[in-house]
Amino acid sequence: MSLDRDALAAWRPFAAGLFDDLYAASDDGVGVTRDAYGDGEQAAHDLIAAAASAHGLDVAVDEARNLVIGLPGADPTASAVACGSHLDSVPRGGNFDGAAGVVAGLTVMAALKDAGIAPPRPIKLLALRAEESAWFGKSWLGAHALFGLLTANDLDRPRFDSGRRLGDYMADAGADVAMIAAGTRLLDPADIAAFLEVHIEQGPVLEGEGLPVAVVTGIAGNLRHMNVTCEGRAAHAGGSPPGDRQDAVIATADLLMRLDGHWQAFLADGRDVLLTHGMIGTDPDEHAISRIAGMTSFSIEIRSADADTLNALHRLVEVECRAVEAARGVRFVVDEAIVNPPAPMDPAWIDRLAAICRDRELPHRQMASGGGHDSAVFVRVGVPTAMLFVRNPHGSHNPDEAMDLDDFMAAVGVLMTALLDPLA
Amino acid sequence: MSLDRDALAAWRPFAAGLFDDLYAASDDGVGVTRDAYGDGEQAAHDLIAAAASAHGLDVAVDEARNLVIGLPGADPTASAVACGSHLDSVPRGGNFDGAAGVVAGLTVMAALKDAGIAPPRPIKLLALRAEESAWFGKSWLGAHALFGLLTANDLDRPRFDSGRRLGDYMADAGADVAMIAAGTRLLDPADIAAFLEVHIEQGPVLEGEGLPVAVVTGIAGNLRHMNVTCEGRAAHAGGSPPGDRQDAVIATADLLMRLDGHWQAFLADGRDVLLTHGMIGTDPDEHAISRIAGMTSFSIEIRSADADTLNALHRLVEVECRAVEAARGVRFVVDEAIVNPPAPMDPAWIDRLAAICRDRELPHRQMASGGGHDSAVFVRVGVPTAMLFVRNPHGSHNPDEAMDLDDFMAAVGVLMTALLDPLA
Repeated sequence: MSLDRDALAAWRPFAAGLFDDLYAASDDGVGVTRDAYGDGEQAAHDLIAAAASAHGLDVAVDEARNLVIGLPGADPTASAVACGSHLDSVPRGGNFDGAAGVVAGLTVMAALKDAGIAPPRPIKLLALRAEESAWFGKSWLGAHALFGLLTANDLDRPRFDSGRRLGDYMADAGADVAMIAAGTRLLDPADIAAFLEVHIEQGPVLEGEGLPVAVVTGIAGNLRHMNVTCEGRAAHAGGSPPGDRQDAVIATADLLMRLDGHWQAFLADGRDVLLTHGMIGTDPDEHAISRIAGMTSFSIEIRSADADTLNALHRLVEVECRAVEAARGVRFVVDEAIVNPPAPMDPAWIDRLAAICRDRELPHRQMASGGGHDSAVFVRVGVPTAMLFVRNPHGSHNPDEAMDLDDFMAAVGVLMTALLDPLA
Repeated sequence: MSLDRDALAAWRPFAAGLFDDLYAASDDGVGVTRDAYGDGEQAAHDLIAAAASAHGLDVAVDEARNLVIGLPGADPTASAVACGSHLDSVPRGGNFDGAAGVVAGLTVMAALKDAGIAPPRPIKLLALRAEESAWFGKSWLGAHALFGLLTANDLDRPRFDSGRRLGDYMADAGADVAMIAAGTRLLDPADIAAFLEVHIEQGPVLEGEGLPVAVVTGIAGNLRHMNVTCEGRAAHAGGSPPGDRQDAVIATADLLMRLDGHWQAFLADGRDVLLTHGMIGTDPDEHAISRIAGMTSFSIEIRSADADTLNALHRLVEVECRAVEAARGVRFVVDEAIVNPPAPMDPAWIDRLAAICRDRELPHRQMASGGGHDSAVFVRVGVPTAMLFVRNPHGSHNPDEAMDLDDFMAAVGVLMTALLDPLA
């Protein structure tokens, strides 16, 4: 049994209303801010939980305060098929990154429940906590906790703005921090047959090609240094002769341009890799127009679906830090790298989603994801995992995310079919 | 009449005590912070005014809240010879930049008063407000106000950290803001015969050459952009293909390295010029490790004793902004330049100070000042002006300023002789 197109289309206002409510609850005046394990994320969780309850779905939270919404299956002994994504956002981000996957799952489940349709396997919708690395430097915190992969060190990570530790935010949100720190699994990977994540595309590929959706083939790995510092020597801008300077700003610009040169050479060589420095700054408590900067701090992020490429560009960071130190009398202090290895999607599920798109006459393509996703953690613990991208014209992690609801409802249709007829 | 060396040396503990008290009143845990027209500067003014009163000197404040300390001369009809400097500091700066010149003048005047010596001309010590551009972007605010040169626009300048306007801080400090805004002169330049400023050297030249003092030949001009912005497009670091980026961080690094190249070429060509970007940053409210930066802001400062060189390097800023815009799809918004033209010291006074150093067998040299000083404003209004630098090992505008009191007392001796026997 399934719902026909018209019956599913009737749930479009339900989804639209949830997106509107999420926006209203997290509007920061510029975009949306749903801070991970903070008030913004909590408001989104409360809103989704209330909507699920109102439609008769089972609502629970686990010890990491991930939201777990359930719809019983026809065979109560069968392992569940899971779907979901996250509800947090970057600061001043957009409304759809993460939320689309949660709302997609909830729309399918509410529609099935309302129509009295029992899926063959139980369906679990996971609204996972704290996917965005913007807050605590590490990604996918709720998904990591789900499988006992969050460490005591991770719990000490400071939030980028307040400096307060993750463990304290989690405790405030009601998580069982001791259990998390002990590495206890909250979910056995063997208990779910698959994990399916709908997510907006974070780049312009689908928009450029006029396609509403894509089946994701794999998630690029990434390697991150949250906080590299360049230590020079603060000095009066008019008092120091040119040859006597240890200028942290110019040394940092030099390093970044050297690394940009290597990156361009990798690209020219046909290698798939991205290099980004999203954050840079002199110390606002010390810098001045008339003072040579004694310090800068900045971030380094390298992404690639190929682990060798990731590591090759990373090695050049070290090489160029030493070269700039020798040339400019500064010292770079590079913090520990956070590494997320590349995560390929399940080949059978890639084929299955592509087949569903074809059956539904939905134009689509296959593509790799440059961005990381909760799904990578499910791959890591051996859960068959698949992702469906939805077209999104203006990129993500900014207030201009602009998913079209037609595209979204097409993805909801694919997800429904996949959940009702999952690979065994 | 004058004081002999031993009599002046007896005032060394007085000066040392003042420096200690100034430090204690403005210790911020890292260095000293005496915020211009704020509590930090006010505490220093109160302390110096109290010490002057305690030693029987005349104490007044003008309508810009500059402190004016007076010692009557033997001829009450003669125009005064003025000395002084400023008492504010950069954030987390050192204890001697500015304060040395005020303490030097006060030490001479207290010693003369105590010995009952009447100088031929009245002596005025000016503790000028808000010399440091770190606070409101423009330098020498008290000196500008003294000669009616502070504009209504200047009064609207925001303080770099609070965003609150200069005029409000001045009003809180008790200044007559309406009178300042009207451009009223608080002192007629014709009423002072000269202005003599003792100041620490802000670079390592005297330390390197083993000289306690230098006679300054002139002050370099400077040209400043407080806040240039680079506008790119924020986007997800994993979602944007390399060719589709408008990365404000890399565009800014590119611009800075191009300008550094031009600067090095100027230096290789023997031109005297300095280029500094003391402040740079992505927006802390928006930046993230996984987001391509949509915006950076940074400062540009060019210094030279030669106006043509200043302008030539400045024109290249415009040229390179356009080139980087074309290459990287960003836009630079360059704020209005603040220009302080070069200020040569009075030739007769240069000779006079050098002669006093020779008479006192004090090793010295002549040198230009790369840093700007209140003295530049006195030059601008036609007052014969001279400066004496004191050796200072670790540069200025940082907590490690380390003037030796022996060097300082040597400079006090030169100042005393100059004030007692000024050029007519």
